[in-house]
Amino acid sequence: MRETPIRVRGFRFAGVACGIKGGGKLDLALMHSDLPATVAAMFTRNRVKAAPVVIAARHTRRGRAQAVLINSGNANACTGAAGARVAIAACRQTGIALGISPYDVIPCSTGKIGVLLPAVPMVRGIDAAVRALDARGLWRAAHAMRTTDAFPKVAVRRVRVGGRAVTIAGLAKGAGMIAPDLATLLVCALTDARVAAPVLRRLVREAVATSFNAITVDGDMSTNDTVVALANGAAGNAPFAVASADGRRFGAALTAVMRTLADMVVADGEGATKCVRIEVTGAATVAAARRVARSVAESQLVKTALYGGDPNWGRIVCAAGYAGVALAPERLRVAIAGIPVLRRGEPAPDAAVRRAAGAMRRVSFTVSIDLGSGRATATVTTSDLTPAYVRFNSAYST
Amino acid sequence: MRETPIRVRGFRFAGVACGIKGGGKLDLALMHSDLPATVAAMFTRNRVKAAPVVIAARHTRRGRAQAVLINSGNANACTGAAGARVAIAACRQTGIALGISPYDVIPCSTGKIGVLLPAVPMVRGIDAAVRALDARGLWRAAHAMRTTDAFPKVAVRRVRVGGRAVTIAGLAKGAGMIAPDLATLLVCALTDARVAAPVLRRLVREAVATSFNAITVDGDMSTNDTVVALANGAAGNAPFAVASADGRRFGAALTAVMRTLADMVVADGEGATKCVRIEVTGAATVAAARRVARSVAESQLVKTALYGGDPNWGRIVCAAGYAGVALAPERLRVAIAGIPVLRRGEPAPDAAVRRAAGAMRRVSFTVSIDLGSGRATATVTTSDLTPAYVRFNSAYST
Repeated sequence: MRETPIRVRGFRFAGVACGIKGGGKLDLALMHSDLPATVAAMFTRNRVKAAPVVIAARHTRRGRAQAVLINSGNANACTGAAGARVAIAACRQTGIALGISPYDVIPCSTGKIGVLLPAVPMVRGIDAAVRALDARGLWRAAHAMRTTDAFPKVAVRRVRVGGRAVTIAGLAKGAGMIAPDLATLLVCALTDARVAAPVLRRLVREAVATSFNAITVDGDMSTNDTVVALANGAAGNAPFAVASADGRRFGAALTAVMRTLADMVVADGEGATKCVRIEVTGAATVAAARRVARSVAESQLVKTALYGGDPNWGRIVCAAGYAGVALAPERLRVAIAGIPVLRRGEPAPDAAVRRAAGAMRRVSFTVSIDLGSGRATATVTTSDLTPAYVRFNSAYST
Repeated sequence: MRETPIRVRGFRFAGVACGIKGGGKLDLALMHSDLPATVAAMFTRNRVKAAPVVIAARHTRRGRAQAVLINSGNANACTGAAGARVAIAACRQTGIALGISPYDVIPCSTGKIGVLLPAVPMVRGIDAAVRALDARGLWRAAHAMRTTDAFPKVAVRRVRVGGRAVTIAGLAKGAGMIAPDLATLLVCALTDARVAAPVLRRLVREAVATSFNAITVDGDMSTNDTVVALANGAAGNAPFAVASADGRRFGAALTAVMRTLADMVVADGEGATKCVRIEVTGAATVAAARRVARSVAESQLVKTALYGGDPNWGRIVCAAGYAGVALAPERLRVAIAGIPVLRRGEPAPDAAVRRAAGAMRRVSFTVSIDLGSGRATATVTTSDLTPAYVRFNSAYST
């Protein structure tokens, strides 16, 4: 993706090198709305929450915010009371520098766990970031969020709401520790639409359900996952309800932004060479469909077969079988890239299996599993498990 | 382990090459008791059960059996009605050849999923196996059970029960698709002790809880997992109750056999270079301790860190955090090979971390996690995740 300039009315952005990572690498991002904005956020369900997650949850609960401050290179997780103090001080300093309440600053951190976030680089970095704020700075902020990401992740949609054209821009970081229930990532969505806080909360939850809660790279749920959305109303549209035509249009655009970012995260999965959609149909309930899709998407044996280009439906059926959902094996159907390899429990001819193996050489394809026992569906996007993933993660040092 | 001859009174064994694998490789094992025996068995909880699992569950329910027939190279799973017919015919033929009821034959299969078990090699192989039965044939039977196993797995214990010396011998196969709830494996325990069927059932369940239900290689639960135990009473001991001194002694010996086999399975984990015990203490309940131990033992990020010799307690704490158990991060303690790396939520000095890294070069060590919130404990044994695992499983062909 070329880094086409993206503007969202009323927002300015900065990405600076504050010295956490060292070597002049960008490691502090600031997103600021000139107007007060409504906010909605979702956080990791890991019981071990990083300090900024606890603070961000408190700050976003009020439904309003004006800035998001993200540092990379240090997760500020498992850092006790000292870690909390650094995060609180960062919010206070950012608030003073921007002339807003410290409670209107949402802190996020990503990087190594268990290392105290150093105060001095943060203090210097915040001042530099506030000075560097620029309406054209969105890409630079996206770069500053990166840890092991191979590329910055940005998505944008424009949509008409209440008679006005509004913009929704999203920035994300994430490559490892990606599991459903908020893949390990930080996501920041910014819009100039006017959206009431309860409406925004509901639409964010819906958008996350089929985007960040439907991807997996390694099944590990992080301590820092955060999705935060700010709506500053600079577009001047009339307010809308969730169930209105405007609500549906805005919700669809927000979901599209989140899905695009989620797909980028999977495509950037550590060591991954493929992005595979696991699509379950014919389930009795959506919950059952999701469990089967996740079980298949997280199976190490399935993921190594995806890497090897092996249409091994046996492993797929096996992973479906231990998803904890009632199954009728004789009704199962599996197709890879649209080519049936298992029909009603009976293997397809060798020629079909060979064609499926050919299709698996692509970098992206769909594995379809029909359970034959209902009408509910679910999709989870996964990556393949590669020797590079293992090498990468066994070398990433403490 | 040298293949020291092992005998169990009243049992004869065979391992033959019947042609399923081809190339003259051993692929059919038969264990036969000259006397009627009591039987207890446990099976995979995968909803997709292989044909022999369904039949074996039916045959063992009666509490008596006299033979176990195991083929390797083909799992006879997802093979529909035709697969069931082949398995039933194999039991019938074995019963006729041995002069016992076909219901007294317990069938097991392991190998590729989704390929019909060919009838002709089975027919020929069963006749050859019955002819080859030999009291000294236990190791040969263990060899014939292997699929991707690097070595045959045999364990034996002798113990005095009811005034008589009795032998418990165990044979296992298993290397990949190993997850708690019966790692993907076939286990056959044979004893000359006289054990009432309900007593045997109870003792097998207890032995499995802390052996095969407490190991993980890749988190995949197979379609074929079977643990079957036969007790033929040839030792002539007096019957005993579960809660008696004899019951405890016999149970401990059976558990020791199963744990030895389970450790061998982890040590033989596909591509694994290390066998690591994840020991959780200080949990509120045993169930909570188990969930945390499994979550850590199955985390891909922890397993790659084990491979890399990285004392990354952040990943360990993170995996504990998403186990779905209430945790107080500030009370957590983590030690690697006895060296504390996290005490009450605070990182240990660098020197300790370096010593822990040194200890992780061993092929076997313990990771201890104290939750500081109770007295319950649990242990799960896991292997490291290596580039070799991925290469191996991406090449294993359909």
